[in-house]
Amino acid sequence: MLRDSYGAIQLRVSTIPEEQRNGISENAVILATGTIRARPTMAQGLPTGTVEVYVDELEVLDPNKPYENPVSTRRLNINRFTDRTHNCGQLRASHAGQKVTLCGWLEYVRMNMFFTLRDGYGSTQVVVPEAVTNAVKLDGIPFESILKVTGTVVKRPYGQENGQQATGEIEVIMDSVEVLNPARSRLPIDIQEHNQAKEFLRIEHRYIDLRSAKLQHNLRLRSQIIMKMREFMINRCGFIEVETPTLFRRTPGGAQEFVVPTRKPDHFYSLVQSPQQFKQMLMSGAIDRYFQVARCYRDEATRPDRQPEFTQLDLELSFTDRHQIMSLVEGILDASWPNQLHPLQLPFPRMTYQEAMSRYGCDKPDTRFGLDLRDLTTILSSNEKMRHGVATPEFGAFAIVAKPPNGNPKTFKTALTKVLKEYPRCKFAVSVVSDSWTESSIVNLFGVRETAEIKERLKLGTGDLMLLGYGKASEAQEMMGRVRLALYTEMEERNLRVTRSVLAPNFVWIVDFPMFAANEETGQLETVHHPFTTAHPEDMDKLRSKQDLASIRSQSFDLVWNGMEIGGGSVRIHEAALQRMVLNDILQIEHSHLQHLLDALDSGCPPHGGFAIGLDRYISLICRAKSIREVIAFPKTINGKDPLSKAPVRITDEEKRLYHIRTVEGEGVEEERVES
Amino acid sequence: MLRDSYGAIQLRVSTIPEEQRNGISENAVILATGTIRARPTMAQGLPTGTVEVYVDELEVLDPNKPYENPVSTRRLNINRFTDRTHNCGQLRASHAGQKVTLCGWLEYVRMNMFFTLRDGYGSTQVVVPEAVTNAVKLDGIPFESILKVTGTVVKRPYGQENGQQATGEIEVIMDSVEVLNPARSRLPIDIQEHNQAKEFLRIEHRYIDLRSAKLQHNLRLRSQIIMKMREFMINRCGFIEVETPTLFRRTPGGAQEFVVPTRKPDHFYSLVQSPQQFKQMLMSGAIDRYFQVARCYRDEATRPDRQPEFTQLDLELSFTDRHQIMSLVEGILDASWPNQLHPLQLPFPRMTYQEAMSRYGCDKPDTRFGLDLRDLTTILSSNEKMRHGVATPEFGAFAIVAKPPNGNPKTFKTALTKVLKEYPRCKFAVSVVSDSWTESSIVNLFGVRETAEIKERLKLGTGDLMLLGYGKASEAQEMMGRVRLALYTEMEERNLRVTRSVLAPNFVWIVDFPMFAANEETGQLETVHHPFTTAHPEDMDKLRSKQDLASIRSQSFDLVWNGMEIGGGSVRIHEAALQRMVLNDILQIEHSHLQHLLDALDSGCPPHGGFAIGLDRYISLICRAKSIREVIAFPKTINGKDPLSKAPVRITDEEKRLYHIRTVEGEGVEEERVES
Repeated sequence: MLRDSYGAIQLRVSTIPEEQRNGISENAVILATGTIRARPTMAQGLPTGTVEVYVDELEVLDPNKPYENPVSTRRLNINRFTDRTHNCGQLRASHAGQKVTLCGWLEYVRMNMFFTLRDGYGSTQVVVPEAVTNAVKLDGIPFESILKVTGTVVKRPYGQENGQQATGEIEVIMDSVEVLNPARSRLPIDIQEHNQAKEFLRIEHRYIDLRSAKLQHNLRLRSQIIMKMREFMINRCGFIEVETPTLFRRTPGGAQEFVVPTRKPDHFYSLVQSPQQFKQMLMSGAIDRYFQVARCYRDEATRPDRQPEFTQLDLELSFTDRHQIMSLVEGILDASWPNQLHPLQLPFPRMTYQEAMSRYGCDKPDTRFGLDLRDLTTILSSNEKMRHGVATPEFGAFAIVAKPPNGNPKTFKTALTKVLKEYPRCKFAVSVVSDSWTESSIVNLFGVRETAEIKERLKLGTGDLMLLGYGKASEAQEMMGRVRLALYTEMEERNLRVTRSVLAPNFVWIVDFPMFAANEETGQLETVHHPFTTAHPEDMDKLRSKQDLASIRSQSFDLVWNGMEIGGGSVRIHEAALQRMVLNDILQIEHSHLQHLLDALDSGCPPHGGFAIGLDRYISLICRAKSIREVIAFPKTINGKDPLSKAPVRITDEEKRLYHIRTVEGEGVEEERVES
Repeated sequence: MLRDSYGAIQLRVSTIPEEQRNGISENAVILATGTIRARPTMAQGLPTGTVEVYVDELEVLDPNKPYENPVSTRRLNINRFTDRTHNCGQLRASHAGQKVTLCGWLEYVRMNMFFTLRDGYGSTQVVVPEAVTNAVKLDGIPFESILKVTGTVVKRPYGQENGQQATGEIEVIMDSVEVLNPARSRLPIDIQEHNQAKEFLRIEHRYIDLRSAKLQHNLRLRSQIIMKMREFMINRCGFIEVETPTLFRRTPGGAQEFVVPTRKPDHFYSLVQSPQQFKQMLMSGAIDRYFQVARCYRDEATRPDRQPEFTQLDLELSFTDRHQIMSLVEGILDASWPNQLHPLQLPFPRMTYQEAMSRYGCDKPDTRFGLDLRDLTTILSSNEKMRHGVATPEFGAFAIVAKPPNGNPKTFKTALTKVLKEYPRCKFAVSVVSDSWTESSIVNLFGVRETAEIKERLKLGTGDLMLLGYGKASEAQEMMGRVRLALYTEMEERNLRVTRSVLAPNFVWIVDFPMFAANEETGQLETVHHPFTTAHPEDMDKLRSKQDLASIRSQSFDLVWNGMEIGGGSVRIHEAALQRMVLNDILQIEHSHLQHLLDALDSGCPPHGGFAIGLDRYISLICRAKSIREVIAFPKTINGKDPLSKAPVRITDEEKRLYHIRTVEGEGVEEERVES
């Protein structure tokens, strides 16, 4: 029973450790935090008699000690439910004099007198007193063995503090040590220098590599960011996290899906590539604010930096529009943005697909730097020489102007060769602007009048580097988008910084994508986002009347960060008739296997839209990791191979019989060759 | 800039809706909540100049209005990012006079004058004023169509309040209505009476069934409980949520795993049945406090109330023991326990496997009621008649005493027939104790002296019902465990309540399981929990010396709630040599495919242990649902069939070629027959 000047209340303390409960005498001043619960049997006559408090934390206050807020400093206890009193990253000068027990990995021993003990939180220096040194031979214990150390915290002697180490103010004078589990000697990876090991080796022995400070940081931050996303969505916005199946049936279009044979002969599940259909059915099912940290599967074995399974923050809500969805996503990122990074500037700028393509030649522009594309098509379109071999109405010419100090066009051109090779039908020119540029040999290509016009239009000055790509407009534009990125990388590598701000994260929304695009080979219209995306409100009439389909903008939108697409979403079609028309008449997709979705739209389905963030990519960007494999605990390498367990592996004939399958030998050799 | 008597601080309000920002005049009194962030450019001369506050919520305070705590009442906004102002479960008398916009499903229309609008949060009565009635014909709109209604909240006339409805104090006088999406008429399921539809139909049209109050409650509660588990584990205990792969390789022993063919001929992934190996490798990898809400897969198609994919709260920690793991699990359940339920009594009682078997004939006892088994083996072991046909050293006789008012043994016996049939090698007797019981015909079975002894030992009184099972001890004990449950169900159904408390949840820990048990057919020792579980500290010497293996207790433990196992865990073997010995010498499991795990133990692995809670089962018990399918958004029916999408389905030959498989026709017909 706890009493103050306002009254008294019953505390239930069975939940807290016994050592915290013991030693509390009557009339002690106590600080308790906990949860109010209904009391099984009411206490008559006590105003608080219907409730009791389940105590989470209990502290006996010393009236001479300064008051500490228990919520901020004491609610997180990383050492609860373990045999240690503190972890290896925790001790500070304020702990001096305390008896502690630490558990961790033996990292380093010096002369049997000092060693460091490391765990996922940091490392602590332990001093072995002479009396103990005689009994314990630390030199014989392999590095990375697991020790349990008890001792007393002392401040390090003046001048011996280590400012680089969080625990550098103190050391622990050892009383006793126990080897809980010895490691074998000479492990394949050195934790301190794990980056020097080949990536295959690091994944093969992932349980060692994970101990490195970098992977510890990445995985711990990943957990925190996703938790903060959940807190915002659930506790602030009332979203419901719903788990949807991964064993489903083939979705039309999209990526290749893994298949899973079943006990029913010739019947297979497909592993979902996203919860798209389920989340739309949830909207029809009145789960109007859904999200899920969803596992998704795509069999894209040969694409670099992809995993056969990956995680996305998948969300959908009803009665909304694209502007509100974009605000929601901004809110999620802001609420989960790591404090130590440069704060986000909200709202993120929005750019139409059209502008992105014309300024950056790319629908996921890296907006950290300029080097914008400049359209010279009108100036050069009557140049017969340049148009030679290019389809008449589709000619385009796009320039980039760079101002590298002492830029040598030849070295840049070399660096761009890889890009240029991929566009054999386009042409490319590069020129350094001289004082007499308009009279130089460049006029042989552009013409005299045109060269002067270009110089004026682009405000070219002496020493500027002009890069020009031309040919079929869409190809030349795309090529120059790639040239822009290659030029940026090249300049950055030579320390010719062109970035506007290194710190500020450059997020940008790309909106107003075209809804349909013609397949280059067949001419058949295909959807640019996915077949469930609806049209821009201003273009809805065109869609309903099936007029001028190629010009229709959709309500899809992508979120781009530093030139990487980290998520995409759209407002969906919520009318069954319209969805049927789009599938049937426009996309000509067989839709009998989407009957459940059409039925859901037809049974009372709210207008809705949603978004998905690729968490592996997003968190790898936050962690400035070289690859998404650096933010995944157990990644696979290219071709979906797992060096750790050696999966995939052969299975028994018995299992194959169970699933009514037989391996076809000889066939598929071609794919095998592509793979390896 | 916000100023009070202590100073001033810069607020950043770009994150909040414009309408909240506008209309704030200088010198207004403002209540703002938000997050402190570093400021991109410092303001010199201002003590708070290095920071600014990103505002989450902003309220202009009216000094005449009573103060409301913004944290508790305003931080959750379920209507943010939508077109509605309120949801259909939200309006109260205090909203009277407000203009509102509601969106939802048309539930009920009366005389074109009233209708109710429903969403996932509740339903609201809307009154159609006569002026509007003439313009809008609500009668023609099919039920379950999606409407957007604007109107004014008014208190219902005195006497017309509906106490059954959360919004029953008010109604909304409609200004306008918009049909956002009409439903087709006559849907296959009636939301109000969805329980009357066959389950197959309800799953086939899950998007309609989900709108029912029950499924809404279950899915929303599920999301909340899991979130509270996360808050406790991450924010209070410093656990890290790590996503581990589901595409892995075959795990020895355990359930049948689904296989996934790959592009490499004759090579397959297996879908993980649990993250067991990964979490142990994480311990070796210094992620010393791991958890995951993990998707797991088991191909147990023909077992009722199982799903091919399911969810478990999977956790593991280092430097711990089984007592601390049990405390942790208790803490998780307590922190996430719904407030509206009878509070948990912590700590949960612990019972040895031995006691559970002897008192309840079962290792997952339902402790809500007594009807304990009483061992009469010693009294009856010399009874030649009863022992006839039973192996000499293994005879056992177990009684249950019930005190049903006017109990008729015959009716009870009928109810027990199903259980008894499953134990053809055991015998069963039931008797009502009369005044002259020790002289009744029962002595022909037990003997005169034994009948008197039994009467005394069991303290039998007139009218008591004695049920006795005997035969091979282990079988008779198990049978009487089942008899006990059947008897309980029978008595409950006749309202002869034997439950000690209906409300109090009866959790119990079962500890000290045997570590090994002999396979009945081969005699080969098998593990009772799994091959990675270590021995009880007191039995460790026996394990190391491979002595008396059948008597060794393990450090595994199960959590049982009302007779259902909701989770299990153990302390693991952390020494590579011991693990290798157990696999090799005792279990004789081929362990070459566990090399990665053995290497992880050998590379510096802390002592560790963990637990897993089956969330589908646990949440279905909290929701008092009849089946786990009632707490899963899109469940499959028996045999893993999905009535909604019709999965599994046939795939194309092209896909089969990609994965180098061919379906075997004709074979496997036997399994097909078992299935259907």
